[in-house]
Amino acid sequence: MKFVRFKNNNEVSYGYLEGDKIIQLESDFIIDNRFIKTGKEFERSEVTLLSPVQPGQVIAIGLNYVKHAEESGKEVPEEPMMFMVSPTAVIGDGETIQLPTEKHRIDFEAELAIVIGKEAYKLSEKEALDYVFGYTINNDVSDRDLQKKDGQFTRAKSFKTFKPLGPSIETNIDPNNVAIKLSVNGEIKQDSNTNDLIHNIEKVLAHVTDVISLQPGDVILTGTPSGVGPLQDGDLVEIEIEGIGKLSNKVIS
Amino acid sequence: MKFVRFKNNNEVSYGYLEGDKIIQLESDFIIDNRFIKTGKEFERSEVTLLSPVQPGQVIAIGLNYVKHAEESGKEVPEEPMMFMVSPTAVIGDGETIQLPTEKHRIDFEAELAIVIGKEAYKLSEKEALDYVFGYTINNDVSDRDLQKKDGQFTRAKSFKTFKPLGPSIETNIDPNNVAIKLSVNGEIKQDSNTNDLIHNIEKVLAHVTDVISLQPGDVILTGTPSGVGPLQDGDLVEIEIEGIGKLSNKVIS
Repeated sequence: MKFVRFKNNNEVSYGYLEGDKIIQLESDFIIDNRFIKTGKEFERSEVTLLSPVQPGQVIAIGLNYVKHAEESGKEVPEEPMMFMVSPTAVIGDGETIQLPTEKHRIDFEAELAIVIGKEAYKLSEKEALDYVFGYTINNDVSDRDLQKKDGQFTRAKSFKTFKPLGPSIETNIDPNNVAIKLSVNGEIKQDSNTNDLIHNIEKVLAHVTDVISLQPGDVILTGTPSGVGPLQDGDLVEIEIEGIGKLSNKVIS
Repeated sequence: MKFVRFKNNNEVSYGYLEGDKIIQLESDFIIDNRFIKTGKEFERSEVTLLSPVQPGQVIAIGLNYVKHAEESGKEVPEEPMMFMVSPTAVIGDGETIQLPTEKHRIDFEAELAIVIGKEAYKLSEKEALDYVFGYTINNDVSDRDLQKKDGQFTRAKSFKTFKPLGPSIETNIDPNNVAIKLSVNGEIKQDSNTNDLIHNIEKVLAHVTDVISLQPGDVILTGTPSGVGPLQDGDLVEIEIEGIGKLSNKVIS
């Protein structure tokens, strides 16, 4: 199922997609985890989609595809390398990525995002996927100049609008085998599959929860494949992940 | 005033200290920001103090005292260097710091912690202190082996129990001129003053909020002075900050 959060007449609601229809639910699918229909339906085109989740914590994994580690000039990490970014950077499908005023290089990064469904701490790889609510698409927009300057990645990746998430959370995919593609103004820039992940989804979940206790709605960004590059004022950046859908955002300066 | 959160007969309450007495308040002093007394009082010794705040975000500043930057063998950063740690690492005064099972070097770090009182984004240095609720004490416990291995600091500093905060939030100090001392088993290890900060409290607040939108209850850890060193099973680590009080935690493995 494809779960969405949306706004209609300034009211925020939860629901799921059936083709181009949205079936409204009574309450937050992640927090309540009961899927009771209100009886109301909307056309997708008549409402505004929001980020499908408002995470408490956003944990990110760096350098998790071999070719991206190579293009970054870094060694492949033997363990997943984690950091955190601010949830205040999250926006939804269709919202605008705002470039900072300083003339830095701002890159796109297509990523599969894990949305946690149940409190998760010290998971084994075997049980890890049982704690996942579903998967969505993330653009891990990054200020490369600040990333280099700081060493720590938090600031470079936490500007407001730098974490588009959406359009929906899909509960039924094999996260370790889906195509992931990113285009800028229609031109393909990243074209890979999560079967190229160095550390697969189970390993990432076990690694993060070995230290951090995750809550329902927390999000893990799982790393980007090769092909990262800069964004300019006016660009349209689109990410497609097989089975989930397409996340589209315009860029303004 | 010294605000506290505490537990009495399994009920969590809010209040403030008057000497060794706790005056109970009706609701969360940070979220509600109204200080209405219930009329009940407790002896501090008859209740259990909790971390005075449960932050949504914990932002940390690295290398913010000259001598600590030197002892770490790093250059003094021209801008505050920020990263994030998980709020699930927070414990209160009197709770136990649990060493991980792997035999790593685990260090103490005495820090002044800023507790945000109002939504804060793009603050000027001039207005910054108006957005602070108050100040508390933090021990930024760190796994030095993982810190080196990962490069990113999040994992090394996010183990459960690695972020003691407390005992109270003081609303009336000059954060840029208070003595800060740490002892292990009574022996002084860190002995400095926040007037040695490279980037003072106003600058830290302006820098963090230039990118991240802070909410009431969010916490900024402002960096540690020189003298950091390892903790062992059985140690008692105590941090005193002038005007705030003393944060005491035992260490177990």
